[in-house]
Amino acid sequence: MVQSEYKQKKERILKLHRLQLKAKALDVMAGGMVVLLNAQFAHQNDIFTGYRVIVRHGRKETIVMVDLTNDMVKSGEAGLFYEVAKALGVAKKADIELELTSRPKSIEYIKAKLDGQALQPAQIETIISEVMENRLSEGEMAAFMTSCYIHGMDDNEVVGLTDAIVKTGDTLKIGKSPILDKHCIGGVAGNRTTMVMVPIVAAAGCYMPKTSSRAITSAAGTADAMETLCEVTLPIHEMERQVRAIGGCIVWGGAVNLAAADDKLIKVRNPLSLDPKGVLLSSILAKKKSVGAQYCVIDIPIGRGVKLTDTAAARDLAKNFITIGKRLGIKIEALITNGEDPIGNGIGPALECRDALAVLEGNGPTDLRDKSVMMAGTLLELAGKAKKGEGAAIAARLIESGKALSKFKQIVEWQGGETRNLNSHSIPIGSHHYRVSAERSGRISHLDNKMLSRVARAAGAPAIKGAGIYLHCEKGDLIKIGNPIMDIYSESETKLDMAIEVLRGYEPVEMEKVLLDSLKE
Amino acid sequence: MVQSEYKQKKERILKLHRLQLKAKALDVMAGGMVVLLNAQFAHQNDIFTGYRVIVRHGRKETIVMVDLTNDMVKSGEAGLFYEVAKALGVAKKADIELELTSRPKSIEYIKAKLDGQALQPAQIETIISEVMENRLSEGEMAAFMTSCYIHGMDDNEVVGLTDAIVKTGDTLKIGKSPILDKHCIGGVAGNRTTMVMVPIVAAAGCYMPKTSSRAITSAAGTADAMETLCEVTLPIHEMERQVRAIGGCIVWGGAVNLAAADDKLIKVRNPLSLDPKGVLLSSILAKKKSVGAQYCVIDIPIGRGVKLTDTAAARDLAKNFITIGKRLGIKIEALITNGEDPIGNGIGPALECRDALAVLEGNGPTDLRDKSVMMAGTLLELAGKAKKGEGAAIAARLIESGKALSKFKQIVEWQGGETRNLNSHSIPIGSHHYRVSAERSGRISHLDNKMLSRVARAAGAPAIKGAGIYLHCEKGDLIKIGNPIMDIYSESETKLDMAIEVLRGYEPVEMEKVLLDSLKE
Repeated sequence: MVQSEYKQKKERILKLHRLQLKAKALDVMAGGMVVLLNAQFAHQNDIFTGYRVIVRHGRKETIVMVDLTNDMVKSGEAGLFYEVAKALGVAKKADIELELTSRPKSIEYIKAKLDGQALQPAQIETIISEVMENRLSEGEMAAFMTSCYIHGMDDNEVVGLTDAIVKTGDTLKIGKSPILDKHCIGGVAGNRTTMVMVPIVAAAGCYMPKTSSRAITSAAGTADAMETLCEVTLPIHEMERQVRAIGGCIVWGGAVNLAAADDKLIKVRNPLSLDPKGVLLSSILAKKKSVGAQYCVIDIPIGRGVKLTDTAAARDLAKNFITIGKRLGIKIEALITNGEDPIGNGIGPALECRDALAVLEGNGPTDLRDKSVMMAGTLLELAGKAKKGEGAAIAARLIESGKALSKFKQIVEWQGGETRNLNSHSIPIGSHHYRVSAERSGRISHLDNKMLSRVARAAGAPAIKGAGIYLHCEKGDLIKIGNPIMDIYSESETKLDMAIEVLRGYEPVEMEKVLLDSLKE
Repeated sequence: MVQSEYKQKKERILKLHRLQLKAKALDVMAGGMVVLLNAQFAHQNDIFTGYRVIVRHGRKETIVMVDLTNDMVKSGEAGLFYEVAKALGVAKKADIELELTSRPKSIEYIKAKLDGQALQPAQIETIISEVMENRLSEGEMAAFMTSCYIHGMDDNEVVGLTDAIVKTGDTLKIGKSPILDKHCIGGVAGNRTTMVMVPIVAAAGCYMPKTSSRAITSAAGTADAMETLCEVTLPIHEMERQVRAIGGCIVWGGAVNLAAADDKLIKVRNPLSLDPKGVLLSSILAKKKSVGAQYCVIDIPIGRGVKLTDTAAARDLAKNFITIGKRLGIKIEALITNGEDPIGNGIGPALECRDALAVLEGNGPTDLRDKSVMMAGTLLELAGKAKKGEGAAIAARLIESGKALSKFKQIVEWQGGETRNLNSHSIPIGSHHYRVSAERSGRISHLDNKMLSRVARAAGAPAIKGAGIYLHCEKGDLIKIGNPIMDIYSESETKLDMAIEVLRGYEPVEMEKVLLDSLKE
């Protein structure tokens, strides 16, 4: 039998598996694309839990998973959850056609990856396309991520995955050059370099369409801090228009459909903290590629309490970024930075925003200023806008001249914010506060990023913009008993009490000890 | 800070994460244990999609996953799907307490397995316990299965997994000896040896509490065929009582809670056909162990169209069964059998039931009789009820004497069936039928298990008991043009037409060919 004949016959048989049903709208969201069928009816029609089917109404159709019930829907009915009903635009009792779909092609490729084979870019693209079509279950996506983690991914696969993520999402078309970007691997409290860097490089005549994240476990993401001043959810065409006009934007990446496939993969990776290196690289670089970045600095903080603790692993990762970046047409410089302690004084959206603005005003915390200037300088050198070794000086001058501050205010205005009376002291912070003072004299040996974040979150950050912590000291400071260590800010006394309680549970600020331990018989 | 102090403080902090909510019953099943929260409310309380929480009402509590919505529930409400509402026994507007749970312990162990470490039995038990408590997501279970597949499992792990599956489910307590069991790896149409073997070994004074499966992709499972005659869903205590009294039962395993954890793992393995060898071994042996089996034969069919195609792999698997069985206290004999073609003449519940009953009556298909007698004989020898080499003869005599048939009828009666006028011809089959005859003369070279199953399913099997196929020929038969090859039976003409259509799409019966292929320029 020739192939096409066989295919025709198979299609004829598949047609037998079309069922006509009456819709029963269930009026709730199910958190997934599911059709609920009567168990006996499904059994009679050889349909089982977890099968994928196409549900069709008029010209609209979508792929969903089957779930069974004994009593919620009757034989001949299709129970449609909110999302499915909406996707099909159906009312109650509408006619629904249900068709068994063929097995997703991805399954074969995922099996191959499970068995240790390297995948071809086209195969990875199929997997990502089917992820975007909701054709793969959570378990199937997890199996894919797990095999990428265990077997690793070669450069070809990482480039293929990155391209596939970019292709299946939206992309930014600025039509200008050079387009710069930056990324930080994360974990350092108060690390708001983006808000300083974007205005600097835009003031230098470059373009930086920056998408940032909100806090997941920290007290503030850049998007949360920026939102203290203006809108951060911009449609793609407004991002494009703004960056073309003024050189930069600072928006929330979650509001745009750039590298959307990555968000679906993250949902599977998060619970197991399953970050296969190749997927991590793809995930970050797809976001850079989809905004059209040509030059990019990657900040890789290392130290106690952040993702990476040793220099060797950080160097390896840095090299991977550079290699993969090159194949994607992005020139990358990776900076391994000290991530042991928080940057700046503020922890929490408004308090961190104050720090960034103070730096742009020519004051502010030295560590935040120095790191931002160094990184902006690196970007300018990468893009050929500064000679080697002169980038940081140019960046510093753009702050001193007030040009970076003007650019920042312009960005805030374009994003709907008010700048007439804006300065680093005008940003409102929590009306209640509690001062933590030193209970003994000594030298500060460690400030813990994670624990400080927890205290700030208990105070209400990031949902309550003005909540958080202001640090009066940093690592190495010699302080006397009674000296201020930090102020905790909150809008509510209850939340302030909760933060104090959390503070007492942990020890976010450690003093140097002489006696480390004592042992007896 | 001493460990207990730290623990107390941590518990105090966790208490801060208790929220009081009003229930909103959503009146539908979600296919999972999910609580729906208002997105903004959740964000303010640091709760994200996929978080695990304990929902509590009075003294009842259950662990569920969080899903978010913008409009389905309001701030301060907990949207409860059918299953959760039922588990808590709540009405609308009831008071619900919601508490963030700690991360399941399993995550750490699954990560270790991901990283190639062998797990300890206690760690595997934790994973299986948390699976049973619904504390692991589909993705987490898939990651565990995937790592077991890629890294393999050592004997310790397989024994640990088996014990954990047995421990977390119910177990049968017969209190008699010897307890025998059998298992077939599956894939052979018409292979109803269980219905012949159980009455033989029970008639020989042994005990065989047999749980069988229903069809998944085949036209009938043993439970489907047995259901033609009597009930197959028995509570555990009735199974125990029956086996104690008459030596055997043939029931549906899905109705009892034996090795229940395995069912949860199967849901994750099925979509990817992910059958890690160690999990396959555990899955089967846990079912044997949980009925208290001391002696067991495993039927491993090999050949075209079944799971295993080569003898070497089958031998390996056989050895694994024997080794692991020994450690679990089950004496196993594994039989590698020819699985290329269907056993018996019937395919479909009633038609297969007719074959088995005919064998017990002293007639019936020779291949089904011989295989059943051989396997029952092996079991009797294993259990010391027959001398080596004499088991099959004893089994055959129990058929010839009519003792096996009487025992079978006794089993049917105990399971609520009627046996007064029961014989192999009295079992009703489909009233419509269609004869397929040879279109040319020749020798039958292959009968395809999978394709014949599809035809029988299209005719209505297994849901419609009388639907299926009666084969008039077997592999090797020399037939003339016009000779009958098979009859297809169905209760409905429409389904019969569908079966004929499927038959034409495939080629389930192949004739020997001289010319295999022809190539031209």
